[in-house]
Amino acid sequence: MYPNWILQRAYLTPNRVGLTFEGKQWTFEEIKEISVQRAGQLAALGIDRGSRVAILGENDADTIFVMYACMHLQCEMVILNRKLTKSELAYQIEDAQVTTVLVHDQDMPLLPENVDFRLFSEIENSDWHSIEIRKEWQAEQTISIMYTSGTTGFPKGVRQTVENHQSNALSSVLNIGLSEKDVWLCAVPLFHISGFSILVRSLLYGNEVKLYRKFDSELIAQDIISGRVTHISLVAVMLERILHVLEEREAKASPAFKLVLAGGGSFPIDYLKRAGERGMKVLQTYGMTETSSQTATLPAEDAFRKIGSAGKPLFFNQIKILGAKEPFEEGEICIRGPHVTPGYIGRFENNPSTEDGWLHTGDIGYLDDEGYLYVVDRRSDLIISGGENIYPAEVENVLMGHPAIKEAGVCGMEDDTWGQVPVAFVVLKKDAAIEEILEYCKGHLAKYKVPKNVYVVDALPRNASNKLMRRKLKELLS
Amino acid sequence: MYPNWILQRAYLTPNRVGLTFEGKQWTFEEIKEISVQRAGQLAALGIDRGSRVAILGENDADTIFVMYACMHLQCEMVILNRKLTKSELAYQIEDAQVTTVLVHDQDMPLLPENVDFRLFSEIENSDWHSIEIRKEWQAEQTISIMYTSGTTGFPKGVRQTVENHQSNALSSVLNIGLSEKDVWLCAVPLFHISGFSILVRSLLYGNEVKLYRKFDSELIAQDIISGRVTHISLVAVMLERILHVLEEREAKASPAFKLVLAGGGSFPIDYLKRAGERGMKVLQTYGMTETSSQTATLPAEDAFRKIGSAGKPLFFNQIKILGAKEPFEEGEICIRGPHVTPGYIGRFENNPSTEDGWLHTGDIGYLDDEGYLYVVDRRSDLIISGGENIYPAEVENVLMGHPAIKEAGVCGMEDDTWGQVPVAFVVLKKDAAIEEILEYCKGHLAKYKVPKNVYVVDALPRNASNKLMRRKLKELLS
Repeated sequence: MYPNWILQRAYLTPNRVGLTFEGKQWTFEEIKEISVQRAGQLAALGIDRGSRVAILGENDADTIFVMYACMHLQCEMVILNRKLTKSELAYQIEDAQVTTVLVHDQDMPLLPENVDFRLFSEIENSDWHSIEIRKEWQAEQTISIMYTSGTTGFPKGVRQTVENHQSNALSSVLNIGLSEKDVWLCAVPLFHISGFSILVRSLLYGNEVKLYRKFDSELIAQDIISGRVTHISLVAVMLERILHVLEEREAKASPAFKLVLAGGGSFPIDYLKRAGERGMKVLQTYGMTETSSQTATLPAEDAFRKIGSAGKPLFFNQIKILGAKEPFEEGEICIRGPHVTPGYIGRFENNPSTEDGWLHTGDIGYLDDEGYLYVVDRRSDLIISGGENIYPAEVENVLMGHPAIKEAGVCGMEDDTWGQVPVAFVVLKKDAAIEEILEYCKGHLAKYKVPKNVYVVDALPRNASNKLMRRKLKELLS
Repeated sequence: MYPNWILQRAYLTPNRVGLTFEGKQWTFEEIKEISVQRAGQLAALGIDRGSRVAILGENDADTIFVMYACMHLQCEMVILNRKLTKSELAYQIEDAQVTTVLVHDQDMPLLPENVDFRLFSEIENSDWHSIEIRKEWQAEQTISIMYTSGTTGFPKGVRQTVENHQSNALSSVLNIGLSEKDVWLCAVPLFHISGFSILVRSLLYGNEVKLYRKFDSELIAQDIISGRVTHISLVAVMLERILHVLEEREAKASPAFKLVLAGGGSFPIDYLKRAGERGMKVLQTYGMTETSSQTATLPAEDAFRKIGSAGKPLFFNQIKILGAKEPFEEGEICIRGPHVTPGYIGRFENNPSTEDGWLHTGDIGYLDDEGYLYVVDRRSDLIISGGENIYPAEVENVLMGHPAIKEAGVCGMEDDTWGQVPVAFVVLKKDAAIEEILEYCKGHLAKYKVPKNVYVVDALPRNASNKLMRRKLKELLS
């Protein structure tokens, strides 16, 4: 049994500021009061304790209050990715069998048809039922569900429990330390584990979250220069833009600024050097939806000694390389610990997420002689573009649904801005214009997943058992 | 499942200093190597994995290495209090049914007769078996057992599990924060939970422990003035002596010095004021053996606003006042959380430690309107003398074993140095000299438990059901 984080935090430090957003601020006591009221309003609108709901909302205080209301009601929250197309969202909503989608008014146009929903404004203006808010949560209770794709190309809903989130936050504090003056800037999406985990840490640590609706390199750079914030979570493309502002202004991060938690794929060494020159410590991390954020993190002091490494596991986590008997031997990265998901929902409900407690990530890597992890190859040829994961199989599935396409292969290409972008190789069965194929993709795929180029080829590279060899796709261009 | 703290800490930060003692220092890698070797030596001497052993040793690096060796072997360690008499130790050793007592060579004279034991020197000079050191521990595994008395006067062996210790350390870090530069000075006994919990925190946090064999106010004051240490655990009498040194030298604590964790009964307001003038933050805490250290802690900033309070519970803990419906209503203090012992061993094995998950402490207190805990009356008229708990019933039991004593009652008297000292009231059945009674007590009770005075009276104050009313004993003196 663990305490309801929101109630306990408000009890312990009621007057500390817990959230700031667009010039407004809320103490933990205020956050509790609003979220308890929203919980009563949700109950009045027929949302039952423990039911499964979906949430679609931008980075906004209102989204947080609705999320916390769901947590009070011990609902399982399917947190929807706002960048997805209607058909992608419809798949998740159906797969998760949610009772209702709670939608930020601004995001109404993103919602697929024929879905039960409630607008945030409806909730906020509703009467409310007096309900019992439980002071304790079970460790194994599901707090959130996030969809991630896999080898099959069908997104899987990943359960993230109280224990998963909490142990991750506690492991992290043992790694990076804590002061009550810490302020964490959140400009990554709340619908990603990178953003949601900032909220969890705030409730456990009692620190302020400075939330941004959108990434804004000028304003964020200013927060870092002035020391208004101490921590920030970033993907590579964001760091580069912030560095650019600092460099233009010939400014440095405040000594009060502590660190960048750097996720979503590896960071170019040049960015790390430039960050060092601007007084910014960058901690690269290896995490995923199935581990409720960080599994391993590389300390800033090792950034140059261990280039390309994702560091060592956090305190409660273990990493092993399947089949490796010696340091430097490559194999599948397996993860164990209280932060590993107990499993999936929907069509993958019966697929176990672990074997003997070990999550088989599908990623390939090795541990060096000091136990530092190096990720060599991401699972299923995963493409990471601006911090968003793109699974080639999912894009290929869509392409093959086009009437002119016989075969399709997708891989990532290096890109200065986004790290990687997806490109497609197709074998046609009848003539089709590239523009028309791209248009088709846009109807079925989130914008960031749409191939930047489609190349028509005679045949795709396949191995002896006829399996597509995605790593050989690029050679078709030379 | 949680990681073996010693192995995991050595893996994560091998080169950080984990322990300093009398001019020597050990990194976490060295601590691991020595403790693993000792584990192999214990195995060679016939100590089986999972067996129950006792440890008797002063504050010394060797004691820590033997403790950690036992942890590697997943032994249940009965940690013996060096201040006890042979007959008190014999009771605990027998009650716990330990296979062997591991004894620091210096403490050999303290050991009762007819006990299987191994000296530390024997262990250190032994061959060693190559054994498997498990990388994972179960949450419910017992790490340590400490004896505490209770209403009956018979000491009870309290189980302290992996989960108990770990959740306490994690709750504490959410309260007081963490930096990798933290150094915790340990001059409280390792056989008390106040000292042992410093070791647990060190392994989880990766911070240095500066261990003292004995409390030395001059040297400790110097460590605080220079900023050589950042944290210290103290009881009131120790704080006063350190303040005295600072005042004599007209010195202040270094700005690097963070806090005093103040346990073992409430602190005079005068000490808090004097500490404030010397730049020392004092956090008063309410804890006990059954909760593996702190349950509630009062932030330094509330010290004067909430005089006499023990603060709010730590994050994972809950406190309720039995039967109280309003703030300020007094009742028995009940505690719930992952830090609460699952139970006792030996003759109290079948006595449940909790009801519905709540530990009934026997202490009386109340919560104010902001939820701050005030302890009004300690359980069983507990006397706290220089941080050591003295249970009147235990001293009364000894007194009543004397051939001349018919009835006995013991209570605490205020004392400038120790906070409280025990005094006894006896009804005689035949003549006896006070000196002779005191001599008798010294043979059966640790020195700190021996009454400072024995008063012969005609009758003891009793209530209608003939129960001794200890609070009325003092009135016999007026």
